[in-house]
Amino acid sequence: MVREMPLMFEYQLDATEGEARTGRLTLPHGVVETPAFMPVGTHGTVRGLHPAEVHGAGAQIILGNTYHLHLRPGEEVVRALGGLHRFTTWARPMLTDSGGFQVFSLEGLRKITEQGVEFVSHIDGSTRTITPESSMEIQWALGADVAMVFDHVVPGQAPRALAEEGMERTLRWLDRCKIRHAELACGPAIDRGLVERKQTLWPIVQGGTHSDLRLRSLEGTLARGPWTGLAIGGLSVGEPKPVMYRVLEELGPTLPVAVPRYLMGVGFPDDLLEGIARGVDLFDCVAATRNGRHGSAWTSAGKVNIRAAKLRLSDEPLDPACDCDTCRRFSRGYLRHLFMAEEMLGLRLLSIHNIRFLIRLGELARARILEGTFDRWRRDWLERYHLRGTP
Amino acid sequence: MVREMPLMFEYQLDATEGEARTGRLTLPHGVVETPAFMPVGTHGTVRGLHPAEVHGAGAQIILGNTYHLHLRPGEEVVRALGGLHRFTTWARPMLTDSGGFQVFSLEGLRKITEQGVEFVSHIDGSTRTITPESSMEIQWALGADVAMVFDHVVPGQAPRALAEEGMERTLRWLDRCKIRHAELACGPAIDRGLVERKQTLWPIVQGGTHSDLRLRSLEGTLARGPWTGLAIGGLSVGEPKPVMYRVLEELGPTLPVAVPRYLMGVGFPDDLLEGIARGVDLFDCVAATRNGRHGSAWTSAGKVNIRAAKLRLSDEPLDPACDCDTCRRFSRGYLRHLFMAEEMLGLRLLSIHNIRFLIRLGELARARILEGTFDRWRRDWLERYHLRGTP
Repeated sequence: MVREMPLMFEYQLDATEGEARTGRLTLPHGVVETPAFMPVGTHGTVRGLHPAEVHGAGAQIILGNTYHLHLRPGEEVVRALGGLHRFTTWARPMLTDSGGFQVFSLEGLRKITEQGVEFVSHIDGSTRTITPESSMEIQWALGADVAMVFDHVVPGQAPRALAEEGMERTLRWLDRCKIRHAELACGPAIDRGLVERKQTLWPIVQGGTHSDLRLRSLEGTLARGPWTGLAIGGLSVGEPKPVMYRVLEELGPTLPVAVPRYLMGVGFPDDLLEGIARGVDLFDCVAATRNGRHGSAWTSAGKVNIRAAKLRLSDEPLDPACDCDTCRRFSRGYLRHLFMAEEMLGLRLLSIHNIRFLIRLGELARARILEGTFDRWRRDWLERYHLRGTP
Repeated sequence: MVREMPLMFEYQLDATEGEARTGRLTLPHGVVETPAFMPVGTHGTVRGLHPAEVHGAGAQIILGNTYHLHLRPGEEVVRALGGLHRFTTWARPMLTDSGGFQVFSLEGLRKITEQGVEFVSHIDGSTRTITPESSMEIQWALGADVAMVFDHVVPGQAPRALAEEGMERTLRWLDRCKIRHAELACGPAIDRGLVERKQTLWPIVQGGTHSDLRLRSLEGTLARGPWTGLAIGGLSVGEPKPVMYRVLEELGPTLPVAVPRYLMGVGFPDDLLEGIARGVDLFDCVAATRNGRHGSAWTSAGKVNIRAAKLRLSDEPLDPACDCDTCRRFSRGYLRHLFMAEEMLGLRLLSIHNIRFLIRLGELARARILEGTFDRWRRDWLERYHLRGTP
């Protein structure tokens, strides 16, 4: 059988098992095999890590934060220095969020209008505005493979009226994002014969925890398509986990099969497996690096607090079942010492491990889905995980 | 010509030019080509750096701090986890200081007696004692290739009486260190046929800035030999640089030719070249990593403050003449951004550069001495260096 060359931004489905899927997404900077966890590079660096380490941990795609990069160093600096890939030296696929989640998190420091969001910079107290159009312009200047629409995010258990307002506004802003992004993509690119080749735009389904709002959001979003991918936003923002799973179960069967689904801001190891089982392909979360910096590691034997006194003389790797550089090279006793002595290297070594842990979960899930053994493996894995008293 | 196998701890002189020397020192964990700068790994890590990065920067030997490792994690932890090499995964030569410099720096928190130094731990306020014997025991447990004698260090411009007291005590302690080290080296090692193979002991010449005391210290030290190496301590501790150079010039011609000379706690780039010209083979200093963490870099075009506004849009490497990973990969604009955003990766990338800068100076000096062009090159280099207004 002759394999056709994948088209840019095409998602090729390799196998499914129930709702779980595995496939390959072709982006300008490379191919992403799904399911995949995307490490977060807030300020143009996955915190504490060298791009070579992020690659060494198996990351296929990383995320950049539009809000943070807009404030510091500013998208014009990034553009002048060759775009986010060249600036950071990360030569593989990259996705930028829209800044929506961050500005809506600035409770009390932001004013929402139909035009956009006015907010106070957390860096210098200056007043700034991000609109659907300017979010597209910033993301275009940053130059990631995938840009996200500017959405109106509401708190995790927002009442129906607020969730509906945010969902409806997200749809109206989607129209504006789509128009501005098309202008940007066609403007200079037409001259170079590169139309739509540099960056794609993905919409975000909102609607809080309200089933009918979620479905209306999805319908409205698909009506404005076609899209090369689709995100589910406004989850993992304070609602109980079973509620998130319920929303995913309700959305799953109605999502288009042909494009990847990205569950924003998720997650923890169990969230990844629960999400994959409900049809999610892509994840991102800062927990891996944040927990790592705080001395907390996910391992095949449960959560490890690296400062624990019992690790003082341990010559074992952090996780004997892990293949990351940290586990292949260093002992728990040494890692503990680095944290007790407040040495930077410790933060870094645990961050590498935690990132690898989530990326490897995605790799294992892919292999199991290809074999058709994902569901049993997932159930066993989660049973062991919960038995060990992780969060 | 058949080259003989070098003996363990032997220093083979390859060439000299005036007082400047280049050679190779054979240690249990490898060969060190001199002149060489040794990065400092205070807590069993060169601050912020992975051992692979330190190796990648060309380091042939690193230094561990006995005082810090004794307090945290404690030499018994290091010994239980296989010694400092295995604990840190640094598989190449290593030297430990004796703790003398650190405990004598604890002005007001330490009491000196003939027996040793009682001091208050900066970690938990507990009272501790280090004696010449316990320093040997700690260093033996750590297991570096080279241990240093426990010396009485006096301030940079100490009056004659104090300098003489410290120098005389250092000689008396040298006797005790030598005895205890020989006991440790012969005890378990005899059974394994490894006598004197695991670790060697180097004495330290003291005497402050007083020429006759320095010479008496050297004579007394050599009378207690033979030694496989020799250190010059108590310099670069507050005295003007010309005074340090004068002491080196007075000592130089009287130092034994056949062993390496280690100038402790030095230095800056100009100190390295001035020291090499006066016969020094080995250096160590925390300035490379400390300055790096503060955003200050030595470059072929002078000192660079990476936070400078003019670097905002610079696509140039930190030092176009440098071959370190930082300079080969990242732009000044990106490095500046990392420092402005207070991202850990920035501290690390500048530390790598500064370490490489000093290590490369040693490599260049060796090549020039082998060619017989060191002196002219050094003068040109220093002239450019001082013209650029470095410290």
